[in-house]
Amino acid sequence: MNQPTKFQPIEMAVERTPQSLPRRRVLAGSVSALAAAGLAGAGTTAMAQTNAAAPKPLPAYVGWKDPNSLIVHSATTIETKRHAFGSGLITPSDQLYIRNNLPAPDASILVDRDAWELVVEGVNEPRTLTLRELKSIGLETIAMVLQCSGNGRGYFPSKPSGTPWQVGAAGCVVWTGVPVRLVADALGGMSAGMAFMTGTGGEKLPDGIDPKSVIVERSVPAQAMTDAMLAWEMNGVPISLAHGGPLRLIVPGYTGVNNIKYIKRLAFTAQESEARIMSHGYRISPPGGKGDPSQPSVQEMSVKSWINGPGTDGLPVKSGLVQVHGVAFGGLHRVAKVEVSIDGGKLWNEARFSGPELGRYAWRQFVLAIRLNAGTFSLASRATDAAGNVQPQGRIENAGGYNNTSWADHAVSLTVA
Amino acid sequence: MNQPTKFQPIEMAVERTPQSLPRRRVLAGSVSALAAAGLAGAGTTAMAQTNAAAPKPLPAYVGWKDPNSLIVHSATTIETKRHAFGSGLITPSDQLYIRNNLPAPDASILVDRDAWELVVEGVNEPRTLTLRELKSIGLETIAMVLQCSGNGRGYFPSKPSGTPWQVGAAGCVVWTGVPVRLVADALGGMSAGMAFMTGTGGEKLPDGIDPKSVIVERSVPAQAMTDAMLAWEMNGVPISLAHGGPLRLIVPGYTGVNNIKYIKRLAFTAQESEARIMSHGYRISPPGGKGDPSQPSVQEMSVKSWINGPGTDGLPVKSGLVQVHGVAFGGLHRVAKVEVSIDGGKLWNEARFSGPELGRYAWRQFVLAIRLNAGTFSLASRATDAAGNVQPQGRIENAGGYNNTSWADHAVSLTVA
Repeated sequence: MNQPTKFQPIEMAVERTPQSLPRRRVLAGSVSALAAAGLAGAGTTAMAQTNAAAPKPLPAYVGWKDPNSLIVHSATTIETKRHAFGSGLITPSDQLYIRNNLPAPDASILVDRDAWELVVEGVNEPRTLTLRELKSIGLETIAMVLQCSGNGRGYFPSKPSGTPWQVGAAGCVVWTGVPVRLVADALGGMSAGMAFMTGTGGEKLPDGIDPKSVIVERSVPAQAMTDAMLAWEMNGVPISLAHGGPLRLIVPGYTGVNNIKYIKRLAFTAQESEARIMSHGYRISPPGGKGDPSQPSVQEMSVKSWINGPGTDGLPVKSGLVQVHGVAFGGLHRVAKVEVSIDGGKLWNEARFSGPELGRYAWRQFVLAIRLNAGTFSLASRATDAAGNVQPQGRIENAGGYNNTSWADHAVSLTVA
Repeated sequence: MNQPTKFQPIEMAVERTPQSLPRRRVLAGSVSALAAAGLAGAGTTAMAQTNAAAPKPLPAYVGWKDPNSLIVHSATTIETKRHAFGSGLITPSDQLYIRNNLPAPDASILVDRDAWELVVEGVNEPRTLTLRELKSIGLETIAMVLQCSGNGRGYFPSKPSGTPWQVGAAGCVVWTGVPVRLVADALGGMSAGMAFMTGTGGEKLPDGIDPKSVIVERSVPAQAMTDAMLAWEMNGVPISLAHGGPLRLIVPGYTGVNNIKYIKRLAFTAQESEARIMSHGYRISPPGGKGDPSQPSVQEMSVKSWINGPGTDGLPVKSGLVQVHGVAFGGLHRVAKVEVSIDGGKLWNEARFSGPELGRYAWRQFVLAIRLNAGTFSLASRATDAAGNVQPQGRIENAGGYNNTSWADHAVSLTVA
């Protein structure tokens, strides 16, 4: 589904955000004009590197996010800047990317979160459960990479239609909720003959259009239920509207679109959904082609890594010891190893993981300490997962610009003074 | 676990919070008048319940925090509400407690973070390092419990002077920085004969007062260097002014005061600091007594846990299956086990940890699934660390109200309808 804007998105009120303000969290509440002036310059420079045109302000429904960490492609597509990724374990919510296939529902759905209703079908005792009931069934927490299927599309020379994401349509996020398998167990188990787990989003659909052409409904193999979750908390707080609250389906290891926001129906089904976003959207089509149900669907993620610093923030890097760092994850598998090259991939050095591992679906920070003389270097990283899969040098060309894991595409140039 | 036996619940000030209150982050930026109206009422009500007097607003330097998650005791002492602790792994920065011994410096110290200077002494090649230089020496990330020495003071019947914290002067936080041992190594190693690692904070001191009487300077045993860090990121972003940015000394396993904010001097010393906050402050004194250097200093944390839900938010809890959950940590040691009682400590059931372990200094979420009939229950949790230390039933009485790990003090009453 390359063109979610085929119908006119619901017009959203936009909150104006000053462009050159220092980071909200850092100086919010400060009355120091000096500080504001000082950081204004830095912010402007950084933004110029990622977006030559005037930056777009944050839409109102994500007005709580940090504007200086984000690139606003459109009201429903917002990317984290590469230099904004820190070396913490978890992506802060106010820096996390946004990619909504439909505009978010009205915020009134959050007034009584526990009253949210989920229809569960394809089990032996189908019924509707409230969020309050779901909370009594189980409680689990998982950290995982949330990544848009099209992250890295911006590196395709073919310029596929769709948002030209670079690295920032991804984050490592903590979800708390009830495991799907416990919900299925509580309702008598999955019905016989079901091969898929299908989630349906609760977005308001535009009038006068065949619902199947726009509804957000995705199917994943039923075995994904093993680690799937119906989540009500993200990063320790109730899920925001922008990220799918009050209830979101979480399918660890699968690309973002499979993690259904505002989920209103969870069904175990014999067939895949017939919604267009499933049948024609998010398919691996040949370059220039169009999606159809015969092509592979974009679902499981593959091993990937990229370098986040130093130098991506435009600050000068001095010769001597340098800490080259970034993130790596394995998709369905644990990431086992990361190598770093400073010469565009001729020679590789094994990097070290920093910080604890948060489970196989989370990303890990890696770092390589290396002495660099003055010069320009092409920094690349290459990850290997626990199953032995190695991040490839090249991308797999496809019409939608999906699943770009190419280490060459994700290389960055570093100038050392 | 058997049917609950009757137990006289410990009287405690349970916060009651209005139901169905949207949180600030959820609706911030929304243009919905409904939401705005709802929030206005909510905030007022919520605060009124934690403080019979008019609610205190957040001070400007922490104006970016979530007011509905916090109890403002004073401009420099702000506590997380018990019901606001979610089941994520990390405490969101905007919910994290504040306890500053002196007012924060002017925000201008953040204008050029990398230019911040740290004097390093008690090494064989003492010198001043900029934050930019520190960043080149090493990069590590650690998750740890940050807890005020006086957390739980509010449960002392003796009402010691100081902030009457309940559970909320604590959080689990991710720090990124350079290990202190790498900095010492880079400067020729620790000088001979040094027994302490002493950090000095960069707060502005009031004029006309002996600096030693107010300066924030603390000493910990030099061996704490092993896991200590000079940190510039908290929870994945540059450390805010309120939490000690641009540079903070992190001493995992030690109470909050030992983690020096705005650190300007790190010294390996033969003797403890003579600052009053070290010599007389934070000492375990007999009830009614005063601190002096002969008494034990408040440093290492001990095994502790508490229950965060359900019911602490005032929402009704229905009979049937209930997920009792909370947090547990071991201080210097990994937490190994948590037991939960629903009858005030007569019978105990082992709880399960949910989510990944983030290293021995982090807290873990625990959960016990249990069927409850209608009635009132006294919920308690009791943690055991990997060294076999068991969280005690009672507190150790002391004049300052420090180090309260009593499981009985931290019990909560739950009414099931």
